[in-house]
Amino acid sequence: MTKVAIGVDIGGTNTAIGVVDIDGNVLVKGNILTPAHGDINLYIEELSGAIRDLINSVKKLNKNIEILGIGIGAPNANYYTGTIEQAPNLSFKGVVHMVALLREQFPELKALTITNDANAAAIGEMIYGGAKGMKNFVVYTLGTGVGSGIVVNGDLVYGHDGFAGECGHTILISGGRLCGCGGHGHLEAYCSASGMKRTAFELISQSNDTKSLLSGYSYNELDSKMIFEAAEQGDTIANQVFEITGNYLGQGLANTAHHLSPEAFFLFGGPTAAGDLIFKPTIESMERNLLATFKNKIKVLPSQLKRGDAAIVGASALVYKELEKL
Amino acid sequence: MTKVAIGVDIGGTNTAIGVVDIDGNVLVKGNILTPAHGDINLYIEELSGAIRDLINSVKKLNKNIEILGIGIGAPNANYYTGTIEQAPNLSFKGVVHMVALLREQFPELKALTITNDANAAAIGEMIYGGAKGMKNFVVYTLGTGVGSGIVVNGDLVYGHDGFAGECGHTILISGGRLCGCGGHGHLEAYCSASGMKRTAFELISQSNDTKSLLSGYSYNELDSKMIFEAAEQGDTIANQVFEITGNYLGQGLANTAHHLSPEAFFLFGGPTAAGDLIFKPTIESMERNLLATFKNKIKVLPSQLKRGDAAIVGASALVYKELEKL
Repeated sequence: MTKVAIGVDIGGTNTAIGVVDIDGNVLVKGNILTPAHGDINLYIEELSGAIRDLINSVKKLNKNIEILGIGIGAPNANYYTGTIEQAPNLSFKGVVHMVALLREQFPELKALTITNDANAAAIGEMIYGGAKGMKNFVVYTLGTGVGSGIVVNGDLVYGHDGFAGECGHTILISGGRLCGCGGHGHLEAYCSASGMKRTAFELISQSNDTKSLLSGYSYNELDSKMIFEAAEQGDTIANQVFEITGNYLGQGLANTAHHLSPEAFFLFGGPTAAGDLIFKPTIESMERNLLATFKNKIKVLPSQLKRGDAAIVGASALVYKELEKL
Repeated sequence: MTKVAIGVDIGGTNTAIGVVDIDGNVLVKGNILTPAHGDINLYIEELSGAIRDLINSVKKLNKNIEILGIGIGAPNANYYTGTIEQAPNLSFKGVVHMVALLREQFPELKALTITNDANAAAIGEMIYGGAKGMKNFVVYTLGTGVGSGIVVNGDLVYGHDGFAGECGHTILISGGRLCGCGGHGHLEAYCSASGMKRTAFELISQSNDTKSLLSGYSYNELDSKMIFEAAEQGDTIANQVFEITGNYLGQGLANTAHHLSPEAFFLFGGPTAAGDLIFKPTIESMERNLLATFKNKIKVLPSQLKRGDAAIVGASALVYKELEKL
């Protein structure tokens, strides 16, 4: 029997579903809309149908396939309770008992579990990616926001109530930039893709640089990919954005390292495509900010999950992790 | 049989030793000088002799006593390797194989283990104190420096190489005060007993207040107890010191909470004797800096280890924790 797991990634607009083998290969995948209507029962029906369709198509490819379970990555998901709680970007209100509702549809599966996307990325890294065999590491996901997934002694840290790993909302600059959450000076406000855009605008405003490739874009037009492309063409402002972002991120990594003494950090998300442009200043800043005991020990690596499928692959890894515990 | 554990606290000047029962009561205790001569073999001989003397005197009190093991709290101690590594305040140079050397003297004991003092405080809190039954909590020790011990899923977090829990060296104010470690803006430079003194001097310098009870002391005279006594007498500067220290500390606790989502924080050390004066602004600041998901959930409590004996009691708790794993 070939054993496989199903990964479900619930986003604000789309729900992506994939059947993933133990090596992290996506055998088949599908998509449904995450509804705006807020009716969770209708959504569970659609989602279950889509999952069954995928199971049928993967069984056509290989009759000897066993489906081990379903892992779900979703915003504001709570591993302990199996719920999604007040996710601002989803239409479902209050507390949604995602695992219990889906369990009714798939009573035969060995594992059915949920966590947030950054935690799923960390488990994905541990099961399929660069963190295989590591017992202590931290994943930072750099996107619209900054998420994190923390692994200690080989297990994901959920904390007392399931919401650990919000390193994006640690304070980097006391009294600094307004964060999306309403707080001030959070790492997310400096190191996310939009944080990089804010840094670009701050630099332009300070330098009055009209010749930068970035000076021709409105705030709503600019994104981190454009900053990367400008930096590659030698644009000074764009290069400074990476230097400064790395400097901030390195401070954040040092703070996390002083808590947890990890073997490695994995960076995931759009801005990491810039390679050395972001990794070099990040590592330099982290090392500068570490106690002597920690220096030159902690790896800072790019995630080894394939970009496009990472969310469903990470979610599917939850199943393999869960089965280790049985 | 009454089962007891031996706790050893190795400080820069003194080494305190105690025989501790399962309820955290110190049955007998003793002291030797931590030598300045740097000869570890001589020290092990003296320490073993002192431990044997204590074992003999406790056996005179109660013949049916079983010694389970020895737990050692020491600066720069590494749980994984059983060593003390380059501790700046101890005369022993390089890497000292403390556990192996003491094991030669006491081959019959079930457990013989070492960790740093803040970690020992955390395990003490878990075995004897306010954290009984808690699986996720963090202890901050406020003294000359600021240490921390982190418990996740019921186990102390040592990290990849044994040095996790250095929350005192996370950055609170980017580019801020020089820390003892050479870094800048670390929590320890604001929230330790000497951090409080620095805040007092900063406030006096800013306000030019010649009437404060604190304005008559030199920097080398002033300590956190004097600030507490002045605050109790209504001194404005002294009260501001507590407000500001609590504000800083609350930011630090929020940063740790966003990493780990603990059930509780325990504060340990001299400044906590000030009670509400330090707890109130700390809790207010932590709550102000927490994401909505974390608000009004996390307890901030005084350590329940008895002040005078806490170090040896904490160290002895290592033995009980270690035996859980066997």
